[in-house]
Amino acid sequence: MSDKTSPLAPAFQPQLPAIKGVQLAVAETGIKYKDRSDLMLAIMQPPATIAGCFTTSKTASAPVDYCKANLAASTSPSGSKAAAIIVNAGNANAFTGKKGQSSTEKIGDMVAATIGCPTEQVYMASTGVIGEALDPSDIISAIDNLVETANPDAWPEAAKAIMTTDTFAKQATIQTQIASQTVTINGIAKGSGMIAPNMATMLVFLFSDASLPADVAQKLLTGAVDQSFNSISVDSDTSTSDTVLLCATGQEPTNFQGPDDETLKDFKLALDKLTRNLAHQIVRDGEGAEKFISITVNGAENNLAARKIGLSIANSPLVKTAIAGQDANWGRIVMAVGKAGEKADRDALSIDIGGIRVATLGEADESYKEQDLVGHMQGREIDITVDVGIASGSATVWTCDLTHRYIEINADYRS
Amino acid sequence: MSDKTSPLAPAFQPQLPAIKGVQLAVAETGIKYKDRSDLMLAIMQPPATIAGCFTTSKTASAPVDYCKANLAASTSPSGSKAAAIIVNAGNANAFTGKKGQSSTEKIGDMVAATIGCPTEQVYMASTGVIGEALDPSDIISAIDNLVETANPDAWPEAAKAIMTTDTFAKQATIQTQIASQTVTINGIAKGSGMIAPNMATMLVFLFSDASLPADVAQKLLTGAVDQSFNSISVDSDTSTSDTVLLCATGQEPTNFQGPDDETLKDFKLALDKLTRNLAHQIVRDGEGAEKFISITVNGAENNLAARKIGLSIANSPLVKTAIAGQDANWGRIVMAVGKAGEKADRDALSIDIGGIRVATLGEADESYKEQDLVGHMQGREIDITVDVGIASGSATVWTCDLTHRYIEINADYRS
Repeated sequence: MSDKTSPLAPAFQPQLPAIKGVQLAVAETGIKYKDRSDLMLAIMQPPATIAGCFTTSKTASAPVDYCKANLAASTSPSGSKAAAIIVNAGNANAFTGKKGQSSTEKIGDMVAATIGCPTEQVYMASTGVIGEALDPSDIISAIDNLVETANPDAWPEAAKAIMTTDTFAKQATIQTQIASQTVTINGIAKGSGMIAPNMATMLVFLFSDASLPADVAQKLLTGAVDQSFNSISVDSDTSTSDTVLLCATGQEPTNFQGPDDETLKDFKLALDKLTRNLAHQIVRDGEGAEKFISITVNGAENNLAARKIGLSIANSPLVKTAIAGQDANWGRIVMAVGKAGEKADRDALSIDIGGIRVATLGEADESYKEQDLVGHMQGREIDITVDVGIASGSATVWTCDLTHRYIEINADYRS
Repeated sequence: MSDKTSPLAPAFQPQLPAIKGVQLAVAETGIKYKDRSDLMLAIMQPPATIAGCFTTSKTASAPVDYCKANLAASTSPSGSKAAAIIVNAGNANAFTGKKGQSSTEKIGDMVAATIGCPTEQVYMASTGVIGEALDPSDIISAIDNLVETANPDAWPEAAKAIMTTDTFAKQATIQTQIASQTVTINGIAKGSGMIAPNMATMLVFLFSDASLPADVAQKLLTGAVDQSFNSISVDSDTSTSDTVLLCATGQEPTNFQGPDDETLKDFKLALDKLTRNLAHQIVRDGEGAEKFISITVNGAENNLAARKIGLSIANSPLVKTAIAGQDANWGRIVMAVGKAGEKADRDALSIDIGGIRVATLGEADESYKEQDLVGHMQGREIDITVDVGIASGSATVWTCDLTHRYIEINADYRS
């Protein structure tokens, strides 16, 4: 948590309603942070189901392994059930070997024993420093109290407890329908550094009162993550701990046939919108971010190629520092398109910044004057659109600028 | 050119000897820079041959296209001949459309006419801002004088004329033997930002008095580039203009059968060593660099996988900022190994920093204390060795730290 809130933070925090079947509690363990909560427990009533997406890192954390094993352990025909999610901030329990695995087991066992559920219905995430052993005792001794104090309204407290270098808590809520039954989705998230496609030190917990078999929830979640958390980048780094969980408590009965049922269309749209909202909040709290950058790539060979080109622009330190310097240096955008490795027709390339055409057919647009863009580049929201002139693939990705503050935060994180 | 020389610059500049068959000259065109030379011409006598490696960018500059076309145009059985290389700094002539192509042709024609050689024996490189039309007239009007003043000794002047944000000129020389005939290789280079594997805003010109058919020179050059310029990274960005040319003037007759001839072994080793030297100089002048970082990856599936993991570490902003902050935050190295996408056995991973074992078998080494590394982390040269525990692939890559000065330079480059 930083003293200074990101200048890109939303003007106000949404108020999340209670979700039937979910209770939340937080505690202060003092593992790393002082005088703030750093432990969050969510308790879900049966028949809650769960779906998850995790980091692609080959050095994933112990809690990621733990969640994956529990998801795989389910023998229920309708997939995985979940009774609790426990999350600590300050220590990632990553690259901690057998000790780290043992810590997850001890914590999971204690949660299961305290609330009275099978251990494979406990899910877990940790965020913070990598490579330092996580002593489970401080967490274990807090669990009794967490269970006792859990209540349906502690969303803002939960969102705060999972923060690391985040400067504001990330919450979102949306209502939608499944077959004329109103359902709600709440989400809380933490982000900051190590945010890149295929996720990052990014933890996202989504809860709905809808009734969704786990396989349906998984398919909806995977699609939602793709167009939200996998389409953002802060610094191109990917953490060992990225976790997105979607928990459906099944308190509002809904009726449909499989994940592609037309009845789920509105829910899918709502989930996509909610996850995009949270993804944008994560970018808006990118370490040191002063500007929120939207990059749309059109004319690519296909949508995947478009996203790859978009992320090449979004991850380029030269593009990001130019924008930090309020410089519409579109030559660096050309460079980033070129290095993406996807097909691009240099002599058909066009670039718009802030809705103004700066380059057409592979060279500077004749009508473009740098002063036309001064106002846009001074603003908080930068829009870039590139057409690479090959086919009709398109994608939008989001990132932030690269500033002195990023260096300050990251050259000094552990000390 | 910056006022302040990189703290990682070599203590003294080598003195390059004359290379029989090569003459050099420089001029001030004022295209972008004032009161410094920004144009370099090298003139080579017949029977000089040439080989080249270029950016993999899909938006390559007009001069890159020009060089590639001339290399391909050769109909000689022994490959391409070269009579001149002309290089300007300040404008990259990239993303300049048909105007850019026309500029290269006008400049090439004028060089060819002035020195009296076929146009396809003229080679060219431009470095600087992308997307601004390059007016060829200032270059064209300087050519007469360049040809008149060309001399065998202007190596330091040539190395300076091609600089952009470089803080020191990059030169190297080496002597070796081909079949007991002593030959020399000289090299000059410019680097700074946009330095990443597959090259960068990096221009390198190598000259030898050896007699090498162009196809032999090409094979030797490709191998040398792989273990030098393609194994370094400053900021993960790749420019539109990267060019490495090797010119062999054939003034010292040498005798061998093809590129794999044992007779060429010493020459190959010397070329590899010289290119590594220049690659290191480029890293040592990375924008804002305060520390030179060597990263060796062992135990990978194969050498290519090892290089990919090494570059994932080298390109990680979180690793680079930690090192800037003199923090031996090896957890971020673990993260970077994990995100590389290559096989790594988390539970067999070991990491050494400055020769001290910090992590063994997937967790912090029990004997390691952070204070053991304070001295190493405060130094200018940081050594990282990682074993990923899969097989015997290995590679070494080089990079620099990511500092405030990088942001300053790049948020302010055009203004």
